[in-house]
Amino acid sequence: MSGTLYGLGIGPGDPDLITLKALKIMQAAPVIAYPAPVGKPSLARSIVETHLPGNQLEIKIDTPMVPGKFPANDVYDQYSEEIAKELELGKDVAVLCEGDPFFFGSFMYIYARLSERFKTVVVPGVSSAMASCCQIGVPITSRDDVLSVLPAPLPSEELMSRLQQCDAAIIMKVGRHFTKVRDVLGTLGLSENAFYIEHATMDNQKIMPLDEAQFEKAPYFSMIIVHKRGEAWK
Amino acid sequence: MSGTLYGLGIGPGDPDLITLKALKIMQAAPVIAYPAPVGKPSLARSIVETHLPGNQLEIKIDTPMVPGKFPANDVYDQYSEEIAKELELGKDVAVLCEGDPFFFGSFMYIYARLSERFKTVVVPGVSSAMASCCQIGVPITSRDDVLSVLPAPLPSEELMSRLQQCDAAIIMKVGRHFTKVRDVLGTLGLSENAFYIEHATMDNQKIMPLDEAQFEKAPYFSMIIVHKRGEAWK
Repeated sequence: MSGTLYGLGIGPGDPDLITLKALKIMQAAPVIAYPAPVGKPSLARSIVETHLPGNQLEIKIDTPMVPGKFPANDVYDQYSEEIAKELELGKDVAVLCEGDPFFFGSFMYIYARLSERFKTVVVPGVSSAMASCCQIGVPITSRDDVLSVLPAPLPSEELMSRLQQCDAAIIMKVGRHFTKVRDVLGTLGLSENAFYIEHATMDNQKIMPLDEAQFEKAPYFSMIIVHKRGEAWK
Repeated sequence: MSGTLYGLGIGPGDPDLITLKALKIMQAAPVIAYPAPVGKPSLARSIVETHLPGNQLEIKIDTPMVPGKFPANDVYDQYSEEIAKELELGKDVAVLCEGDPFFFGSFMYIYARLSERFKTVVVPGVSSAMASCCQIGVPITSRDDVLSVLPAPLPSEELMSRLQQCDAAIIMKVGRHFTKVRDVLGTLGLSENAFYIEHATMDNQKIMPLDEAQFEKAPYFSMIIVHKRGEAWK
C-alpha cells in the first residue's frame, strides 16, 4: 500500500505557530520534504527545526529563484518523482509549507502532480497575511468589509484601481516593488492607514507605519497592510 | 501589576488545528472568555474543550444574534469591564476566537475597548477561509492572483462586479444569502468553478460542487470558494 502525501502548513515563522495537527503528522512521517532556494538554507525547515525528531529522510526541493519568474515546471516534475518513489515504498511524506499550503504556497505544484496518484491530505496553516494583521494590531475585516489580497508585482494602475475599490488590502510579496506600492498608496492618500511589516512573527520581525518606512528596498517576506476605514471596528 | 489580555485564534473547528502557541497560553491562563449566542452553547469553547485543564474561571460572552445586525456595543462594554476586573486583579485572560481573531472575529470589539489599558497579545489562527480551500483541494492563490474576500450580505450587483474583477474569491457568511450568491455565480458563468462548504474541518463538514448544492438555505458557517482560472496552478 502506498504512503500518504501530506501538505503541511507550518505557519508564518514563530515555531509555536504550527498547529498540533501539522506537528503530529510531521513528527510521525518517515520522510519530510521542503523547498529551499538553490544553495541556501530552507526557511521552512528552520521554522520547524526544534520540533524535528531527527531520524527522518529529508528531501530538499532546490528551487531556483529568478526574480519575476515562477519556478520551472521541470523542478517540480523531478522532485515530485522523488517524493512519489517514497510514497510507492509505502512511506508517508510530509511536505512542509511556510504559512498555508494553498495561499501562494509552492506545495500546489506538487499537489497538481501527485494528488491524483496518491492519497493526499492538506493541513491548513496560519498564513503570514493573517499573522501580520495580528502582529500590527489591525483587525483586517469586520462586518461586511471587502478584503483584497494583492500581489505587489501588479502594475501601478491595477494596484491603484483595486485599492480604490476595497475596504482593506493585504499587499503581498512587496520586496523589490516597495517604492512602487508606497507611491501608489501616497497618491491615493492612504499612507496614513498603512503599515509595513517584514518577517512577521520571526525573531527579526520589523513593523512600522508606512510613513516611517524611508527605504528603497524591502526583503521578499514583507507586506503592506492597509485599512481604508482606519479604526472602523471601534 | 495587571494581567495580560490574550486574543487567541483557535482555528476553524478541528481541535488539532489550534496552534501550539494558543494552546500553551490558553492552558496557562487562570481566566478564559468566549462568545456564545444567548441561550446556546459556545462553539469556541466546544472546539477547545478537550484541551481545557478544567480549573479556570470562565466568562461566557452572551452575544445576541439578530440577523443583519451586528452585536450591540453595550454587550461589549459590559463584558469588557468584566474582563478588565480580572486583568486588574493581575490575572491573565485568554479570549477564545474561532478562526483568526482579526478576520471577521468578535475579539476586535474587546480589543478596541481594552488594548490601550492593558498589555494585549493577539495570536493568529487558521482561518476558516484558508481551511476551506485546503479541505476542498483548491489552491486559492498562486503567482500574481488577486484574491477577494467577499461577505455574502453584499447586494447582488456589488457581488457581481467584484467577482468579475478578481481571480479568486472566498465568499463568507453565506447562510441565508445562499440562493442570491448561487444566482450571481450562475449569471457570471462561474458555477462550475465554485465549491460550497459548511462547517469546515468539523465532524459535520459538508463539501460539494456548487452545481450540486440544490437547497435554499445554508448554515451561518458556510462559504463558497470560486477560482476563475479553474486549475490554473497546474
